[in-house]
Amino acid sequence: MEECQIKLFGLSANHELTEAVADELHQPLSQIDIKRFADGEIYERVLESVRGDDIYIVAPIAEEVNDVFMEIMIAVDALRRASAAHINVVIPYFGYARQDRKAKSREPITAKMVASLLEMDGIDRVLAVDLHADQLQGFFDIPVDHLQAAPLLSDYFYRRNMLENLVVVSPDHTGAGRARKFADLVNAPWGVVNDNVAMTTPESPDAIVGEVAGRRAIIVDDIVDTGRRVQMTARALRANGATDVFVVATHAVLSGDSAQRLAADENISHYIFTDTLLMPEAKQSAKFTRLSVAPLLADAIVRIHENRPLDILLKSRNNPDAKL
Amino acid sequence: MEECQIKLFGLSANHELTEAVADELHQPLSQIDIKRFADGEIYERVLESVRGDDIYIVAPIAEEVNDVFMEIMIAVDALRRASAAHINVVIPYFGYARQDRKAKSREPITAKMVASLLEMDGIDRVLAVDLHADQLQGFFDIPVDHLQAAPLLSDYFYRRNMLENLVVVSPDHTGAGRARKFADLVNAPWGVVNDNVAMTTPESPDAIVGEVAGRRAIIVDDIVDTGRRVQMTARALRANGATDVFVVATHAVLSGDSAQRLAADENISHYIFTDTLLMPEAKQSAKFTRLSVAPLLADAIVRIHENRPLDILLKSRNNPDAKL
Amino acid sequence: MEECQIKLFGLSANHELTEAVADELHQPLSQIDIKRFADGEIYERVLESVRGDDIYIVAPIAEEVNDVFMEIMIAVDALRRASAAHINVVIPYFGYARQDRKAKSREPITAKMVASLLEMDGIDRVLAVDLHADQLQGFFDIPVDHLQAAPLLSDYFYRRNMLENLVVVSPDHTGAGRARKFADLVNAPWGVVNDNVAMTTPESPDAIVGEVAGRRAIIVDDIVDTGRRVQMTARALRANGATDVFVVATHAVLSGDSAQRLAADENISHYIFTDTLLMPEAKQSAKFTRLSVAPLLADAIVRIHENRPLDILLKSRNNPDAKL
Amino acid sequence: MEECQIKLFGLSANHELTEAVADELHQPLSQIDIKRFADGEIYERVLESVRGDDIYIVAPIAEEVNDVFMEIMIAVDALRRASAAHINVVIPYFGYARQDRKAKSREPITAKMVASLLEMDGIDRVLAVDLHADQLQGFFDIPVDHLQAAPLLSDYFYRRNMLENLVVVSPDHTGAGRARKFADLVNAPWGVVNDNVAMTTPESPDAIVGEVAGRRAIIVDDIVDTGRRVQMTARALRANGATDVFVVATHAVLSGDSAQRLAADENISHYIFTDTLLMPEAKQSAKFTRLSVAPLLADAIVRIHENRPLDILLKSRNNPDAKL
Amino acid sequence: MEECQIKLFGLSANHELTEAVADELHQPLSQIDIKRFADGEIYERVLESVRGDDIYIVAPIAEEVNDVFMEIMIAVDALRRASAAHINVVIPYFGYARQDRKAKSREPITAKMVASLLEMDGIDRVLAVDLHADQLQGFFDIPVDHLQAAPLLSDYFYRRNMLENLVVVSPDHTGAGRARKFADLVNAPWGVVNDNVAMTTPESPDAIVGEVAGRRAIIVDDIVDTGRRVQMTARALRANGATDVFVVATHAVLSGDSAQRLAADENISHYIFTDTLLMPEAKQSAKFTRLSVAPLLADAIVRIHENRPLDILLKSRNNPDAKL
Amino acid sequence: MEECQIKLFGLSANHELTEAVADELHQPLSQIDIKRFADGEIYERVLESVRGDDIYIVAPIAEEVNDVFMEIMIAVDALRRASAAHINVVIPYFGYARQDRKAKSREPITAKMVASLLEMDGIDRVLAVDLHADQLQGFFDIPVDHLQAAPLLSDYFYRRNMLENLVVVSPDHTGAGRARKFADLVNAPWGVVNDNVAMTTPESPDAIVGEVAGRRAIIVDDIVDTGRRVQMTARALRANGATDVFVVATHAVLSGDSAQRLAADENISHYIFTDTLLMPEAKQSAKFTRLSVAPLLADAIVRIHENRPLDILLKSRNNPDAKL
Repeated sequence: MEECQIKLFGLSANHELTEAVADELHQPLSQIDIKRFADGEIYERVLESVRGDDIYIVAPIAEEVNDVFMEIMIAVDALRRASAAHINVVIPYFGYARQDRKAKSREPITAKMVASLLEMDGIDRVLAVDLHADQLQGFFDIPVDHLQAAPLLSDYFYRRNMLENLVVVSPDHTGAGRARKFADLVNAPWGVVNDNVAMTTPESPDAIVGEVAGRRAIIVDDIVDTGRRVQMTARALRANGATDVFVVATHAVLSGDSAQRLAADENISHYIFTDTLLMPEAKQSAKFTRLSVAPLLADAIVRIHENRPLDILLKSRNNPDAKL
Repeated sequence: MEECQIKLFGLSANHELTEAVADELHQPLSQIDIKRFADGEIYERVLESVRGDDIYIVAPIAEEVNDVFMEIMIAVDALRRASAAHINVVIPYFGYARQDRKAKSREPITAKMVASLLEMDGIDRVLAVDLHADQLQGFFDIPVDHLQAAPLLSDYFYRRNMLENLVVVSPDHTGAGRARKFADLVNAPWGVVNDNVAMTTPESPDAIVGEVAGRRAIIVDDIVDTGRRVQMTARALRANGATDVFVVATHAVLSGDSAQRLAADENISHYIFTDTLLMPEAKQSAKFTRLSVAPLLADAIVRIHENRPLDILLKSRNNPDAKL
Repeated sequence: MEECQIKLFGLSANHELTEAVADELHQPLSQIDIKRFADGEIYERVLESVRGDDIYIVAPIAEEVNDVFMEIMIAVDALRRASAAHINVVIPYFGYARQDRKAKSREPITAKMVASLLEMDGIDRVLAVDLHADQLQGFFDIPVDHLQAAPLLSDYFYRRNMLENLVVVSPDHTGAGRARKFADLVNAPWGVVNDNVAMTTPESPDAIVGEVAGRRAIIVDDIVDTGRRVQMTARALRANGATDVFVVATHAVLSGDSAQRLAADENISHYIFTDTLLMPEAKQSAKFTRLSVAPLLADAIVRIHENRPLDILLKSRNNPDAKL
Repeated sequence: MEECQIKLFGLSANHELTEAVADELHQPLSQIDIKRFADGEIYERVLESVRGDDIYIVAPIAEEVNDVFMEIMIAVDALRRASAAHINVVIPYFGYARQDRKAKSREPITAKMVASLLEMDGIDRVLAVDLHADQLQGFFDIPVDHLQAAPLLSDYFYRRNMLENLVVVSPDHTGAGRARKFADLVNAPWGVVNDNVAMTTPESPDAIVGEVAGRRAIIVDDIVDTGRRVQMTARALRANGATDVFVVATHAVLSGDSAQRLAADENISHYIFTDTLLMPEAKQSAKFTRLSVAPLLADAIVRIHENRPLDILLKSRNNPDAKL
Repeated sequence: MEECQIKLFGLSANHELTEAVADELHQPLSQIDIKRFADGEIYERVLESVRGDDIYIVAPIAEEVNDVFMEIMIAVDALRRASAAHINVVIPYFGYARQDRKAKSREPITAKMVASLLEMDGIDRVLAVDLHADQLQGFFDIPVDHLQAAPLLSDYFYRRNMLENLVVVSPDHTGAGRARKFADLVNAPWGVVNDNVAMTTPESPDAIVGEVAGRRAIIVDDIVDTGRRVQMTARALRANGATDVFVVATHAVLSGDSAQRLAADENISHYIFTDTLLMPEAKQSAKFTRLSVAPLLADAIVRIHENRPLDILLKSRNNPDAKL
Repeated sequence: MEECQIKLFGLSANHELTEAVADELHQPLSQIDIKRFADGEIYERVLESVRGDDIYIVAPIAEEVNDVFMEIMIAVDALRRASAAHINVVIPYFGYARQDRKAKSREPITAKMVASLLEMDGIDRVLAVDLHADQLQGFFDIPVDHLQAAPLLSDYFYRRNMLENLVVVSPDHTGAGRARKFADLVNAPWGVVNDNVAMTTPESPDAIVGEVAGRRAIIVDDIVDTGRRVQMTARALRANGATDVFVVATHAVLSGDSAQRLAADENISHYIFTDTLLMPEAKQSAKFTRLSVAPLLADAIVRIHENRPLDILLKSRNNPDAKL
């Protein structure tokens, strides 16, 4: 048998990122035909032989999440039937990840369902970035290589020498661990917003669990979607004496009109995102910095293909001892 | 344990039909909350207890097929986790059914994938109407109760006493069996359009395999989507001397601007559809008759729930000996 | 067929609780022979017919977790082969629940594995109490009925009218949500211990995120195992001016010598636990109150058997509007 | 690990073909012991090591279909337990393929069952020739490489320069697509027999949908079993003025006395079959030409083993643009 | 829903037994159409509604084992798709049971494969009689109700008062346990034939492990197939002084000419079989007594349907304390 | 991709054997961290990259069987998630193997359950030594390479020239086949103890089926656990005139105080065991010889890794024609 080769596929979502990964790998994208019929059905056809190949599909589950998810599922079906050897799905943003538990009776656990469907479709591995909850890895039985953008995002502050007098704040209690890790990366204290209070009386000292007065605050979150939570947090931080507010988040969903609204929010100085999600021009702003995960993904793909460990990708170059 | 009860759920697609089925059953629809988040994710929550109940979800996979399909999958996940006893999915129109084989190398078989996903999600039964190919039943391992709309559609001609001098025509060779069955129902001969010829020279006698001159032609198909195929067929039929052209089809997808185009086509006198798919007002026309499958579905649901056979539903009242 | 009956089984672990549940149900325990061979192998035999019965096994995965887990697995194998109709496993304490994610490279996700093994063994439902993370429900595809002990535990404070001047504190950031919920139940503010600081300089104001001076603090956790974390938390609370410290926790693992150590800790006034785990006499103390979950479990079992909803069991009688 | 090698196995059915494939591959057949016990049970034992090997079993499901099918299943079980790396099953004729849908209530879908059993037994791939319906590929979730004999069969007419004045006819409506494809290969028009009419009044012009008078007719089918359908078709063709009748079919089942009967039928000039099925001497006739699929199968096996695409095998050399 | 009813089906093999079971149950056999096509394929169709019914198929895997096995598989596929509630397969004789382990390298384990196929096809329970090895129950994960014919067979000796001076002998070491159990039933000592010696020098005292001189010997086996083993055993028994030789066996396969040969063997006085297998008239003999398992099977079916225990069916009425 | 390498892991049980295997392979053991928490939970972490590696875990299921079994399960979970290519589990002693059938109603089949759990956890192969019943291989669907210690154990007698005047005896009827095989290896006759008689009147000639007077008896068993059965057998052998008694067994479980008791039993001269199980110093005795299976296991591992057959490992060097 011929030696197994990497073939890299991108689908409709965030094609920019897929191309950036391909550039990093010095490898052309493999050809796949994707059509949307008038009635909404997706049609796909893989245009080159993939027999015995090691496939990497780069596909955030975003933009139109259901269409994109079906695109992945259909591509995997075609690749499996076309005798691909290994099908790795690189999911920079995992849509539905927030639906990871039954918060109320008779809710679904859609994140688990999505994981099970991918697995049942025949994929061999997931490569993900900052899954909403660590437990999502356990929704899969196949290997999940889980990358973290925090070291990359903290670079922003290291490069600008903005490490003095910081406080890292989680916009609610569920993100406390994320804030604590980022605080460790930039050697700062951390706090948590008490959203019940912050929503109504942001100026109350009870709105924030922790000390922020006279400090530059960094709000850390995994996803910024409508952005209302970071805005509320920023308001409480300012009201409690924070001198400056930054927002750091891996996934810039920015749904609806939120990009414009966030760019206009005077409480927040700057936003540091990655490019796991496409940011169309209309959403871009001078206040938004986007750091690319493409080199990280490309490095991971090469290491996976060559059976080398990924541990080193989980470290911060600036602060190698920080716990991640 | 309490006795097992029917609970009927409708989702977003073709809610009109679901309500018609509920009316036939003299049973209110059960409550389910369905939200679409700004980022496209669907959220659902079943609003009443379903423990030990016999669930029927009425949901054509249509309109926005991927969103609707995910809606079904998520509803089933919630119902299964909420301890429903049996989950029956009534799929009046099965989106993706036409993608039922690899017509070319490296294509997916999306219809099979959709079937496998439904089955893996934990459904107990499918109740379908006029699946695109009979083999789709074999894509499932669970029971599939497969209803046929042909007897209902043929009623149109019986009621109007339009049974003389008919010819039933399939718009291409794959539908020959369907035309033949309908011909049997209305005691008429049948033919097949040779689409290669019909497309370029509709007036050629080779455009139609079979005799149509001086006859009222009924074009029979399962799905009318863009409608270009039935228009081409009608043109060839007229050019070959058909005195009148009717279109009979179970599923009126009518994607894009096809409804307007079809209504305006002078070659075609009238269209007889069912209501498996929603027909928004903008698409309606005096030339379109829609016969409701709601009584058929309601009857089937009762029979399934009561463990009585469905055979009788597969018969034509007008022509009980016709082979279906 | 005969009507389906409840049969209740207890295994080796926490037989006291099983008997208490049986008492609540006014139903004798069904007979099962459980032997431990000299070489460590477990032998079980169900001693009465279970054909067509609705089985409830009450079995915390605790004490000797691996032996107990195998006991459950073997009992389920025997019951399934003996034609039980439905096998419900009541797991008041879910051992291995804390191993729910890969915190480091090349770790297992043992909680998922345990869930998968139970499911693969043929159980139909899990009834659990305060799972370590909500996401564990998603490790199962079968229904999980998830009860919460917080309303029961909060009763302690309501009955003693100890609702003034409280603050609820989580011993680390991962428990912030749990503390917040309990704070809501007793209408108090909440805080989080910053364990990095608290460990070395408990008196530092940075040791606690939130205000505790002059307040009665309630440390809330799901599990007290070695108890070192609650002791550290209590020390920091006292050093920061808390007037009194209570510990509230569902699961009293109290491994090793921790029961004695915790009873002797002068920083902590009292502990409120449930009886999900056995507390042998040697571990008991006047400072430990144990509230029984038996009525809650019995009520849930009856409701499940009768297909009635469990929602009401998730409410607090004292504070019905509190969000759980 | 050693490099993976091809090992080729034949079972009882059509050993001639297996040997022809081995010859084409210049590779000896691997040894397997197959016994039939007096009570009908089959015993098999693989006689050489297959650890880590790439296995190809050539086995039409024919002759005694149930025995042969069990032979395949048992061989696969032995090979899997003996640590074969990949098990490819070459099924030149797929018995039970015609039972691919529920034509009536309470029928099985045996073709799906056979596919599921093979898949469950642990095979990695099917290599098939002219499956009765394209949808059969979807009965498998593993890769199915589907070859077509039409180009090979059309060679017969190209080599003899018999391309003038042809018409290709399907013996019933379900084969219309097959006839149309073959017509495309030999650049001829096509028709369909209306079997209801043809059976009783073959001379009626309604017996054949399409024009055949004065033409050489080629009846195209996938399987000739009892042959009664092609005989009826030939009779109608002659009665409607066809000057000559040929039968082209991939699979010559020729059950019962049909070989003799077909050879004696004066309406039919010649039959062109392949050798997917064994033709014992007693069934052979000067009117039967058998073209071997062995080179096609051997070529496919090499390409699969070397991870090269099979597309080229699906083309006709004589008419490379014909749609297949 | 209607109450669940028993429906009893017989297939081709041993229809006599199925009818006897139906008689015992005072219940007509349900209708199923079974055809064998000229090419060997089996076609089945269930002729009456089975929705929600509790199905019992009585089908020894015997006569033509592969055809019969496929008959069962196809019937189950049809019944499952036709919405049967529970499918119980009564397998009085389990063909392939002797292929239950790899005795040599690269053998299959066909008995396991057969069990897995049945289970995968969707059956809910197996009811079997004297499986060749007890471990076969473990080849299934569904309930297996395992009946024993020994009490019934021992009746022969109790009724005739032939309990004095017996010795029970196993024809080889693998049957030692079976002989020992039967010996316990008739309160006799037991022995084992040393087949290596017995084959060449039956008169050697080493041919039989145990004392037989002057005793009436009962050879006990589960299956008599070619019968050569029992003949060899009888020869050794006679040569070692046994005064009389009986053969007791549950399953009378009697393949090839063995019935005639065994009837003619003067070393053996009489054979006691059950009717798990059909005995065509040509095989019958005055020396063969056949005791019917029909009452036993009927009793078991009723008990299973009514969820009553089967323990009592495993006891001997003559010797209730005998260990079985 | 890099070439696939062997990585060898040992767990807690019988680490001596694992190290001996590693020595034979001239390969260091791979690093894994195994901790036991105070509450009994096991924690494991693989300490070196295993991506794409061929893993062999050497782990008898013994000592504390449930803990050890969970250790294996957890290690496999970690290795699978860490992208190991193939996971082979070497199980020199298979705990729970004796629970391989339902001897009474409502017993489990724990050996099957253990096999299913291992398989479900994602292992690719089992390498076992002297499984209690051959049928256990059929409890797995993955390849099981089954080694036999009998040739190694028989070496003891060949090396000491103790081949005259032997008789091989099984301590009960279920081990008759094992005794017969060993007898074949040392060219001796064989017998079976009739345990019902032997237990009460060991001196009775009925206590032993076969002749032992004046012979050196070798009791052969697979497992010596409490040892009471071999002691009873030895007593009967001595009472019936055996001149000497040896015990040969693969697996020396020696639970409780049995080691001391057996060493002190004057009826038995010597015991020949292997080292599949750890023998702590306190259990050792001059009367116990332990022959190491490490060379056999190491040889098998190399052959499996290199895809070479294992047949030769199943032969006896002293008596190559003996049937094993």
